[in-house]
Formats: sequence, structure tokens, C-alpha cells
Amino acid sequence: MRTAPDNAVRSFVAEHTADFLGELEEWLRIPSVSADPERAPEVRHSAEWLVAALRRTGFPVAEVWETEGGPAVFAEWPSGEPDAPTVLVYGHHDVQPAAREDGWATDPFEPVRQDGRLRGRGAADDKGQVFLHTLGLRAHLAASGRTAPAVNVKLLVEGEEESGSPHFGALIRAHADRLACDTVIVSDTGMWSEDTPTVCTGMRGLLDGQIDLRGPDQDIHSGSFGGAVPNPAVEAARLVAALHDEDRRVAIPGFYDGVVELGPRERELFAELPFDEAAWLRGAKSHAALGEAGHTTLERIWARPTAEVNGLHSGYGGPGGKTIVPADAHIKFSFRLVAGQDPARIRQLVTDWVAAKLPDGIRHEVGFWGEGTRPCLTPLDHPALRAQVRAMGRAFGQEIRYTREGGSGPAADLQDLLGVPVLFLGISVPSDGWHSVDEKVDLDLLLTGVQAAAYLWEELAADWAREPWPAAGA
Amino acid sequence: MRTAPDNAVRSFVAEHTADFLGELEEWLRIPSVSADPERAPEVRHSAEWLVAALRRTGFPVAEVWETEGGPAVFAEWPSGEPDAPTVLVYGHHDVQPAAREDGWATDPFEPVRQDGRLRGRGAADDKGQVFLHTLGLRAHLAASGRTAPAVNVKLLVEGEEESGSPHFGALIRAHADRLACDTVIVSDTGMWSEDTPTVCTGMRGLLDGQIDLRGPDQDIHSGSFGGAVPNPAVEAARLVAALHDEDRRVAIPGFYDGVVELGPRERELFAELPFDEAAWLRGAKSHAALGEAGHTTLERIWARPTAEVNGLHSGYGGPGGKTIVPADAHIKFSFRLVAGQDPARIRQLVTDWVAAKLPDGIRHEVGFWGEGTRPCLTPLDHPALRAQVRAMGRAFGQEIRYTREGGSGPAADLQDLLGVPVLFLGISVPSDGWHSVDEKVDLDLLLTGVQAAAYLWEELAADWAREPWPAAGA
Repeated sequence: MRTAPDNAVRSFVAEHTADFLGELEEWLRIPSVSADPERAPEVRHSAEWLVAALRRTGFPVAEVWETEGGPAVFAEWPSGEPDAPTVLVYGHHDVQPAAREDGWATDPFEPVRQDGRLRGRGAADDKGQVFLHTLGLRAHLAASGRTAPAVNVKLLVEGEEESGSPHFGALIRAHADRLACDTVIVSDTGMWSEDTPTVCTGMRGLLDGQIDLRGPDQDIHSGSFGGAVPNPAVEAARLVAALHDEDRRVAIPGFYDGVVELGPRERELFAELPFDEAAWLRGAKSHAALGEAGHTTLERIWARPTAEVNGLHSGYGGPGGKTIVPADAHIKFSFRLVAGQDPARIRQLVTDWVAAKLPDGIRHEVGFWGEGTRPCLTPLDHPALRAQVRAMGRAFGQEIRYTREGGSGPAADLQDLLGVPVLFLGISVPSDGWHSVDEKVDLDLLLTGVQAAAYLWEELAADWAREPWPAAGA
Repeated sequence: MRTAPDNAVRSFVAEHTADFLGELEEWLRIPSVSADPERAPEVRHSAEWLVAALRRTGFPVAEVWETEGGPAVFAEWPSGEPDAPTVLVYGHHDVQPAAREDGWATDPFEPVRQDGRLRGRGAADDKGQVFLHTLGLRAHLAASGRTAPAVNVKLLVEGEEESGSPHFGALIRAHADRLACDTVIVSDTGMWSEDTPTVCTGMRGLLDGQIDLRGPDQDIHSGSFGGAVPNPAVEAARLVAALHDEDRRVAIPGFYDGVVELGPRERELFAELPFDEAAWLRGAKSHAALGEAGHTTLERIWARPTAEVNGLHSGYGGPGGKTIVPADAHIKFSFRLVAGQDPARIRQLVTDWVAAKLPDGIRHEVGFWGEGTRPCLTPLDHPALRAQVRAMGRAFGQEIRYTREGGSGPAADLQDLLGVPVLFLGISVPSDGWHSVDEKVDLDLLLTGVQAAAYLWEELAADWAREPWPAAGA
């Protein structure tokens, strides 16, 4: 196995930075806003631009994949090595809406380099983090003297991520054979901070839906009937209140069955992160921390399942009062799930629990917005994760720490539909302003990410050569 | 004391029924809808019409009293007897909105006699029940040979009751000297049914308002922050759920302190009423009975205090889901109060309870729509009540049973501001369609009510002569 000397990678990256950034800026000028139907031609333009850029990079295969919505891009670069593993990089080329009038310092689709940062919609989320792989691969080849990567590299760059990936599952299913791989690298996440490089090891799952309660056939007079018939607003509240016990643990029987608990080492690693709760609360626009007893804030948002109420509506909401017993009540809920929890099983537990909780006279329906998103988690000792951490360590020259993501994303679809572990390679930091005004990417971090991507392929290949990786969830 | 022979009253009423109904129909043709600003001239017309009718009846004083809204009518007819008590009759001359297009069989302001009933807006609520006193008084005089009533009769007929009586308290305060009396007869209620004449002995009080909770300064992402900060929707639900214990008793400490409990005799009397719970539930458009343990449905709605939620709103309410922790939550509540409960004291208990219940990070405000309405209750053994029951018994020729009203009304203002007990003389029945289409009054019941009103004055006078009545709440 030929490995790339670190100084060779650094030199190659330095020599090609100007061209790399120029090309990235060209891509950022394409306003590929998937949420805006009028920008559909720009989303297509962005896909076609990326195909051309990947061909210039050297990918022998690079093509647009149609979906029922915005087009995706697929590219493939086989390794020369017969036993090399196959690694699929995931990202997206669509971006959030943005307009100068929202408060941007400059036109969001006219990128500007300033103070060591590149500002523009998509700079961090996700064009910058996708595009770093082009220079990363070229540096890998140049520094190692290869003509093809050390692993079979595949790239899937979605065009609807900012619109909720409505056709992503279908896309994966339709192309499962061409997407077959041994691991997925998600290049659409962040790090703890500029000073603390980290790798994300998992995302929570999601199951969300609505509970509708119906009591009287219409709003009725609270003086004539209140206190003698069930009130859907009160019953909805009792249901929501019963979601958590006094320790703020989710009180639905069986909810925690099978949950992969945090080990002592992972709790230590979380606790070692330079977490400033007061600053975090300011970011959360909140005035106190509150959650499951026995867990820190980071554990609560990264590694513990939750039950949240996103909306609760019943009865009169106008000015003043109205002495009614409302006819109905509606609860919008979302459960975040962690490894070991199956959305289909939780769905059944919730459905049964609601039915058992309500008194006679309250009719109900429980609905879910979809099948749910599964959680994903790569164990700290997974060899592919260890290889990624080595690659990042070489690039950053620092110890790489571990985080997780509290949110839920299409990474789980890749994990589940392809049956492989998912790694997260991200170099964005919280101050990059995802989905906000003045989105930007730190140029030092971006180019360090290019180096990490350059080392990644040989680290993964070397590890695989010692022993192929276990499948997802194993 | 000259008493009117029952057959003389009956004959007089029979002889004058045609004129009486003709006049009432004339009044019903005036669309005195207080809620409709365009009908303000009709409300005034109605007041002036009533003044003229009362003068024709023989009232030496009958005048329009201005308020900041619709005008009221006051009339006074002193007794010849030096020691006679003073009785104030309360009713209202404004009506609910009504239009043929709402589904009325005929024009709501063109009264029709059909099947023994008089149909038209206001027939039962409240013009019919106010107007019965005119013929009642004339029958009282004619049958007893008097030239003035056996008691000092006063009449206060409000013009804004269907709009929530916004200026009624001020009206009473402004004219407290002229309204001074020994008891109030509220002629704006109903009886159990055509076959079961009853007298109402009390109404519940009311205290309503709103609780506003604020958590994050804006809606925040439930994946990033949910489960680690307090969620106002969840906290609102926990607050509402804590309003009642498992026996569905109100769980606010001190809430039941001082409550006048039902005695065994009153519970027996309630239980003897021909109550059909299935039919009642159909009327309540509800599918089960549920309320405070240890009490029947009638006890729950008539004699027990309650806590109801009239509205509950937090977070997202549109189609589908939105994974947020909402910024705020709003609870609209109403408490029905019974004798022994002071709205001002309950207000303090509620305010303190809310403050003690909420976790750090949830800011809150508790507001009330007003000072609340006090409950009123006339004990079964109150001599004025016994006199009324005798009068009704003579008219109906049946045992008179006892009910209460679950709702709340201006009767309590009269009780509190004038410091006198309140009696309820009503002959309307649930099928009369108050506030609904095809409002009507049963002509047999209306004319029986006229007779009861005729006997009432001498029964009250006789009782008073034996011993003056105790004051309100005594």
C-alpha cells in the first residue's frame, strides 16, 4: 500500500487552492434553491455543472440521475486494487433560499472571500463540503503516485436535501446495485468548533405525527355541561403530561427497551468537550436547561431519545374568553430516537399507549407523517471510524474528539437501505450560519478538510486490508 | 291580608289572554338585537314600547334608564301596605340575533302561534317571561280586590343581557337607592320540563382568564434543542393536567375551602328528578359522562365547582409536522364557582398555584377577564323561596321540585350589589330553543306562569308579615 506523505498532500493542496476556490465560487453562483419551483432550472444547472467538474477531476463516470423532483448527481471512480473496499460519499448540491434583503452583507449568490472565510449560500451547506472531495482525491493521487484511488469511490449528491429529501429513498432503491458499497461518508455535517475538531458518530431518528381527540360533536357551553363530560383540551393535556414522568423520562411503556446506552468512555468523551452551557442556552434562545434526569445537556440532545410536542391546539384562541368545552384537540408530536429504537415499534407503542390513556367519550386518531427516520450510530471502535479519525488527525494535527447530531437526516436511509455503516466527515462550524444570513465557510478548515479527505482513502483501504468492516448496526 | 281565590285568578287570566298575547306579539316584532349595532334603534324602541306597556298595566312609575350601551327599563308600583316588603323583578328586553336564513320555519320577528306554542325570537328569552308579570299583576289586583300590589313591586329590565351585560354593574351602582329591595325575582330562567315544574335555587359563579407561558424567545429546532430545554406546550399541558386529580377533583390547594356542600335532602331532591342521562348526553352532544368522583351528573353541573379549559394553543397548527419546540403556549380557563367560594380568593389561589408549578426557564403571566361573577344560592328553607314555591304550587297544581343553574349570570350582581337573596321564577323549558332557531314558549306554561306571578305577591307579603327575610348569603 502506497501512502501519501503528509507534506506532499499539503503542498499539492496549497498549489491548487486558487483554482479549487475559483471553481467552487463558480458553483456557488448557481442559485440551486430546491424549495423554489422557479429555481428548478438552476438546480439542474448545478447538477450539470457538478458532473462536468467531477469529469475534470478524473471521475470516469459522472452523470445526472433524475428523480421525480430535483436531479441528483452520481459519480464513480474504481480503484485499481482488486480487493479494495467501496466507499460512497453523500452530499447535496441544492441550497436554502437566500436573498440580499434577508440581511446578507453581500449578494448570497455572489461569493466573497473576506477575513479568511468564503461567504455565499451553500459555502458550508453543502457545496463547499462536497467540493472538497475533488481536490482531496487529486491530492491523494498526486501525493501517492496513484492513477486511481485506493478505494472504489462513489459519490451521490442529492438535489432535494433542503426540501426534505422527498424522493431520496426511491432514488436509493432504484439504483441500489450501483450504490452498493462498504461504507458511506456523509459530507454534510459540522465539527464542534474551529479549535476542537470532531467527528460525528451518529444521528438520532425521528418519528412524528399527530393525535386528534374528539369529544362533544360541537363546542358546548361550559356552564351547562363543563365538569360533567370529558373535555378534549383537558384530555389532550393529560395525555401530553403523561408523556414524561417526574424525572422527565418518556413514560410510554417499552419506549426505552433496547436503547443503546452511553458507555462510560463515551460519557467521559462528551464531558471533556469544552461545553459552555450558558452560551449554548443563548444559542437555544432558552432560559434554563431541563431534561431527562441523570444526563447532561449534551447527552440529552445527542444520545437520549425524547418526546416533544411541536403543536397543541384546542378550542378558542381569539381575544378574551369563551366559556366552551371544545369539540376537539390536536397534538403534533415528534420523538427523537436513538440506536436500538425501531420507528415501527415505537409507532405501535405510541398508538397503543394513546388508546389506553383516554377516557370513554373521547374518540381519537393517531397518525404519523411517514414511516419515520431510523437513528444511526457508528460505534467508537468501528474500524472505518478509526480510519477516519486517523485521517482527520493527520490533517488537523490535533486529537479528534467525538460528537453526535441531535437531528435526523437521510444518512439513516443510506445506512438502512444499503446496509452499511455511516461515517460523518464535516468541517463546518456552528458559526458558519447554515440556513441563515451570511452563510460562510472557514477557508483554513475547508483546506484542512481537503487534506483529511486526501488521507481518508488510504486509511480506509489500509484498515479494510487488515479486516473488512462489519455491516451497519453490527 | 286579602288573598286572591285561585279560581278568580284563573278566570281573569283566561279572559285577558287574547289581549295579553296580542301585546306580547307586538313586542316580539321589535328586533331588539343588542349584539347588532345597526339594531340599536330597535333596542331603544323595545325599551320605549315596554315603558308604555307598563304604564298601561298600571305602574305609576315606568321610565327608560340610559346606560353607556343599550337602555334599560325601570318601573315601580308601591304597595298600599306600610310594612310591605319590596321585590325587584329582573329580566331583559334585548334578544339574541336571529334570521330566517338560519333555518327558522318562519320570520323570527313575525310571531306565530302554532301547536300550543308561540314562536318568535324572545318568546321565551326573555320577553315572554318579563311580560307575564303584567297580566300577573293585573290578575293579582283583580282577584284580590286591591288597587295596589301586596308588595312594593319594582322592575328592572336590562337591554344588554345577550351581549354580556357590560354596563349592568354600573347601572345597579348608579341607581342603588331606587333599586333597594328585600328580594330579587329573576324572571329569566327555565324549569325542568313541561311535566316537572321546578324552581331554580342558585347559579354558579365564574372566574375566567388566560395563562400565557413563554419558553424560548422563538420557535427552536426540536432536534437540536428538544429534550434539553423546557417546552411551553409540554409545560402548559402539565399545568392543565395538574388542574384535576385522579378523582377529577380540582387539585389547586384551598380550592374547595368554604364550599357549601350539598345536604342529604338536596341530593335526594336532585336524585328524584326524572333525569335521563342518555338524553342529557345527546343534548350535550357528548359521548360519555365524566366528572368529579362521588357526584352525579346533576350535582356536577349544578352544585360543584369546576375547572375547565376553553382553549389551549401552542406551536405549529398547520398541515403536516414541524419539528420545533414552540416559543409559547396559551391556556384559556374558566372556573365555575359555588356558594362559599369567593372569586377574588380563587383568583389568588390560581395565581399562586401557577407560579409554583412551572419550572425554571418558563416565564408566565396569569390574567383574568374581570373580577369574576359570584355564585348565588338561596337555601331551600329560605322563607321567600318557600313563598315562591307555594305560589307556583297553586298555579301548577303539582309539587314544585328544585333545580339549580350550572351557568353564571347577572343575578349574582343583584344579590351582591343589593345585598338581598335572589329567587328564580321561570316557566321556560329546555325545548324552547333559547339562542337557537324557532325559539318558542309553551302557551299553557306561559299562562300558568302568569298565575304563579299573580299568587307570588301575596305569598311573599304573607311570609314577610310573619318575619322579614334574612339578607343574601345569610
